[in-house]
Amino acid sequence: MPVNPTDLTSAAAVRAAARCGALKHPTSGLANDCVQANVVILPREVAFEFLLFCQRNPAPCPLVEVLEAGEIEAKTTAPGSDVRTDVPRYHVYSHGARSGEQLDLLDRWRDDFVTFLLGCSFTFEQHLVQNGIHLPYFGTDKGVSMFKTNIDTRRAGPFHGPLVVSQRWIPKAKVDWVIEATRALPLAHGAPVHVGDPAKLGIRDLSQPDFGDSWPPHEDSDVPVFWACGVTPQAVAVSSQTSLMITHAPGHMFVTDLTHRELIDS
Amino acid sequence: MPVNPTDLTSAAAVRAAARCGALKHPTSGLANDCVQANVVILPREVAFEFLLFCQRNPAPCPLVEVLEAGEIEAKTTAPGSDVRTDVPRYHVYSHGARSGEQLDLLDRWRDDFVTFLLGCSFTFEQHLVQNGIHLPYFGTDKGVSMFKTNIDTRRAGPFHGPLVVSQRWIPKAKVDWVIEATRALPLAHGAPVHVGDPAKLGIRDLSQPDFGDSWPPHEDSDVPVFWACGVTPQAVAVSSQTSLMITHAPGHMFVTDLTHRELIDS
Repeated sequence: MPVNPTDLTSAAAVRAAARCGALKHPTSGLANDCVQANVVILPREVAFEFLLFCQRNPAPCPLVEVLEAGEIEAKTTAPGSDVRTDVPRYHVYSHGARSGEQLDLLDRWRDDFVTFLLGCSFTFEQHLVQNGIHLPYFGTDKGVSMFKTNIDTRRAGPFHGPLVVSQRWIPKAKVDWVIEATRALPLAHGAPVHVGDPAKLGIRDLSQPDFGDSWPPHEDSDVPVFWACGVTPQAVAVSSQTSLMITHAPGHMFVTDLTHRELIDS
Repeated sequence: MPVNPTDLTSAAAVRAAARCGALKHPTSGLANDCVQANVVILPREVAFEFLLFCQRNPAPCPLVEVLEAGEIEAKTTAPGSDVRTDVPRYHVYSHGARSGEQLDLLDRWRDDFVTFLLGCSFTFEQHLVQNGIHLPYFGTDKGVSMFKTNIDTRRAGPFHGPLVVSQRWIPKAKVDWVIEATRALPLAHGAPVHVGDPAKLGIRDLSQPDFGDSWPPHEDSDVPVFWACGVTPQAVAVSSQTSLMITHAPGHMFVTDLTHRELIDS
């Protein structure tokens, strides 16, 4: 039975709806006070190198919680959760290509799987919207624009590839404020990696995002601002030809009990 | 040929002296501008869990650099270094007991060894001394007092055990300043974990440290202040019965090219 998104005001309710199959759509706007997380699941065989990759690339991969091999519950940030079922949609990458989409991982879970929960820009988007920045997709089932860049991440073991960024149009007069406001949120990707000319990041056309949806500027004087993005591991899975990586489908996040306020104060 | 410590003003000179066997004593006061690091070397088989232990316990285990399996050079913080030789003395822990001390690791190095360099309180001690705090052992071959506490670290895989703290006597009027000055240095253990009564940490007698040397207060009104300590992994090796962990001998550190100023600004 499909759920009414307005009923999903707690993180536990969102996770329960995903678990029973009632929630299959993006999680933007659900349980608005709660931190949503990017998900990466890998065999323990490469978990050291991926954790090192996160440590070397904290802007795209800020660590919210790391589960040990075989653990299915995010005990610290989402007690009672089950990472095999609580994400609305999963993407599976095999040897560098996306090989499938699944609604749960019950059939393919393994005792050597290690789950990484990475911070997400929904935390700072909430903060921007509350301070009068217009984000046209906020609270809809559409998503922010995301682009692969010509900036390389710092390699760790087999993991390497391009930094992926999210892009938002910001009124010129508010750019300085936005930079400082997001700098204070390292667990939600921190300050922008670039402001202005997309070509500097190797991005040719802002109307052709690699992930998510395309958005025109709200005002002609709006400036494109770019942040490191938690979809980076999915580009890394492709570049690195990783034998197996399971992630959330973009926009279909794992919702933790952690509040944005707790993340901002931590 | 023994070296004159006053000649060892660069990090590269300290590492070269350790490498050729001329430097076998503690590194306090050598290459004073440079960040010294605690060393932990483990087989890759448990490297994921130990890196997770560091991520869960950033106060005792702030990550300065992590080398990949088999790598001997700290490329980022000490180009040209060799972690098998550049520490004056190494301690070897086997199955929970210290099984030996070595001047180098050339004979026992393995391609699956992973090296962790962890921040060290020498960085903030330099800062305290420059601001008029008296540290009686500073620049001598004696060391700060260190104690095992009744505070548990956050477990990761097999790694668990007591937090080890270093203790310094601080003039009452300067305690607030010291707290704020060290809070700004998370890569050098950050703010104190405790101020005042040692019994609160389960420490019975400040004249009987578990590691390092014993120091009386300079003035009767001095207050004991306790910081998380990079010797914690050595207590964890014992508690966890780790099959193999190699560390620096306390006080005999790996000296990086990174300056304290770079660490403070980072």
